Amino acid sequence: MSVTAAAGFEAAGVAVGLKSTGKPDVAVVVNRGPLKAGAAVFTSNRAKANPILWSQQAIADGTVEAVVLNSGGANCFTGTFGFQTTHQTAERAAELLAVSPGDVLVCSTGLIGSGDETFRAKVLAGTEAAIAGLSADGGVAASEAIMTTDSHAKRAVVTRGEWTIGGMAKGAGMLAPGLATMLVVITTDAVLDAEELDTALRRATVVTFDRLDSDGCMSTNDQVTLLASGASGVRPDLDDFALALTELCGDLAEQLQSDAEGASHDIAIQVVHAASIADAVEVGRSVARNNLFKAAIFGNDPNWGRVLAAIGTTQASFDPYAVDVSFNGVRLCSDGGPDRPRDEVDLTPRSTLVLIDLKAGDHEATILTNDLTHDYVHENSAYSS
Amino acid sequence: MSVTAAAGFEAAGVAVGLKSTGKPDVAVVVNRGPLKAGAAVFTSNRAKANPILWSQQAIADGTVEAVVLNSGGANCFTGTFGFQTTHQTAERAAELLAVSPGDVLVCSTGLIGSGDETFRAKVLAGTEAAIAGLSADGGVAASEAIMTTDSHAKRAVVTRGEWTIGGMAKGAGMLAPGLATMLVVITTDAVLDAEELDTALRRATVVTFDRLDSDGCMSTNDQVTLLASGASGVRPDLDDFALALTELCGDLAEQLQSDAEGASHDIAIQVVHAASIADAVEVGRSVARNNLFKAAIFGNDPNWGRVLAAIGTTQASFDPYAVDVSFNGVRLCSDGGPDRPRDEVDLTPRSTLVLIDLKAGDHEATILTNDLTHDYVHENSAYSS
Repeated sequence: MSVTAAAGFEAAGVAVGLKSTGKPDVAVVVNRGPLKAGAAVFTSNRAKANPILWSQQAIADGTVEAVVLNSGGANCFTGTFGFQTTHQTAERAAELLAVSPGDVLVCSTGLIGSGDETFRAKVLAGTEAAIAGLSADGGVAASEAIMTTDSHAKRAVVTRGEWTIGGMAKGAGMLAPGLATMLVVITTDAVLDAEELDTALRRATVVTFDRLDSDGCMSTNDQVTLLASGASGVRPDLDDFALALTELCGDLAEQLQSDAEGASHDIAIQVVHAASIADAVEVGRSVARNNLFKAAIFGNDPNWGRVLAAIGTTQASFDPYAVDVSFNGVRLCSDGGPDRPRDEVDLTPRSTLVLIDLKAGDHEATILTNDLTHDYVHENSAYSS
Repeated sequence: MSVTAAAGFEAAGVAVGLKSTGKPDVAVVVNRGPLKAGAAVFTSNRAKANPILWSQQAIADGTVEAVVLNSGGANCFTGTFGFQTTHQTAERAAELLAVSPGDVLVCSTGLIGSGDETFRAKVLAGTEAAIAGLSADGGVAASEAIMTTDSHAKRAVVTRGEWTIGGMAKGAGMLAPGLATMLVVITTDAVLDAEELDTALRRATVVTFDRLDSDGCMSTNDQVTLLASGASGVRPDLDDFALALTELCGDLAEQLQSDAEGASHDIAIQVVHAASIADAVEVGRSVARNNLFKAAIFGNDPNWGRVLAAIGTTQASFDPYAVDVSFNGVRLCSDGGPDRPRDEVDLTPRSTLVLIDLKAGDHEATILTNDLTHDYVHENSAYSS
């Protein structure tokens, strides 16, 4: 059910030919209220697509009536014309929904630099068609319309007593910190104002999507939007809500990881006994971005030397010659030297755990990444995004 | 002639079975004087191999009699035993050469975590054999003995009037800033003291080896050593010497780039009109490390959107929406929007120039990198280093 699992929302997904495959490519999610509260986080890339520039303004007042999303074109680096396309999309949706254009967010994903007259015409036509087809069970269709190289749609629902959170996500390449090439819309029928939503959303994303680093490449179009309709009539404890939201975001992040372009391993890099959470994240990310390590995992090679070479490039507080490194539960390196033989490690399963014990403190963090494979190279040399 | 092109040096390369292929794997370079001045720069990785830890101490007094180098084992993360191996190597060489062990540098390259009794015995035997075979034309043999996955040896010579600089280099993977997985020995017969050598070496490496970023992976064993024998009897102007040294280092850096593991393109990322050299380097490096960009070049796809997405992650001073990007002389993006059609660009030649005009100042820098290919993934998943 994704974004329509929570009461008070309608959604739709339609095909208007933005994708050469003819698959659905425009989605709309509408908040029927009674609350119209929203919050969003955006890519930290300075190169931001036009929908990001628009949505950052539109979210400022905490009121969101609808989100229009398209795949098949990123509308990024398309100049004034591209920004006008986004603006016109919000205006068209607002007119049909009888709301203010400034309360309509827009998201786009696809090739950077594409956004001509044809693109504009199709996005506007898709916006009209999707709004005409809105329904309270349109969540699945919406989740399918935002896919690009995703092999399947990503959806999740978390229910706590009388309130529900539902969400959809897309993203398979350019998955990196400060958010991935991903679009996420999350809805809830809990009663929460925009400030509370913003707090909960930042708490959840910093430990979920922000710790997913599939290929180190930060996108221009990432956006995670959270909408509250208040339709349950129930005001949850904010901590309870943030925890439930974190669970849902973690679920979607893992779905993104497991469908990453060309990957053959889902790698969790768990860094323990760090001097700070920031240190643990920095150390984990240095491994997640090391191509030699990632290629080794593809080859089922538990190459702990490459782990140590990677973490040695960080500024984190620890002694490189005191570190332990385990692969799938087998400690191959202890105190910076060889321990168990490599052949005790079985890296044939897709799920891979690399445990790094820094012996420098009481903090920990886990970074999710993927291996570097022939299919990754193939998909990203043959497909332009 | 490499390291024996300059007068006052002898070298040798021998095979002792460190490599399973039976190819040469231990090299020695000896300075016969009359000067025994030396300088060196080392990997900035905090995870440093034992030879690095040793050589950093040995170079401190600016006197170097000899350098012993081995391939077939990095002697990194091998604990106290590994450090003793390096120490014993220097002592054995010093004894045979009748010099102080503290004036013998050691370099190793190969698999991290390998450095057992067998390794030690072979390195010591190789040191003896190489010293027994030293000759004034041993530079070629030495350059061959330091190869790992290199497809050919790298050598260069620059002569200015009465003095000469010669050098050898190895390195094909883990090529990254703060030096690559590379060992370089450079010799000169010019009359220069250790401080002058250090100044010239840092000036040369910062604009050559430090701007080579093949795969973003920083090694544990990198070392560039410069030795002066003074045998020409000529004291050059320091600026002239630094310029000649920069030419030689640039030549070796390009040889490393063109032999990078699995690469099908040698990419020069030229960043112009930057607010500072540091900005130009940061922007160039962000592109050099972007896997999506690197995979696109492999696929002969001049994907300027990925260039802009990469540079948007930097802190450099420029407006992402004002940037021009050209591939091989064709401007595909001007003022942050599409310009010439992509199909005007021919990316089939191995040599690729990406020109990024930041329009933010008067500084520039060029970063050298390679594409991300199937062969890179294959070589780094099948070969453990």
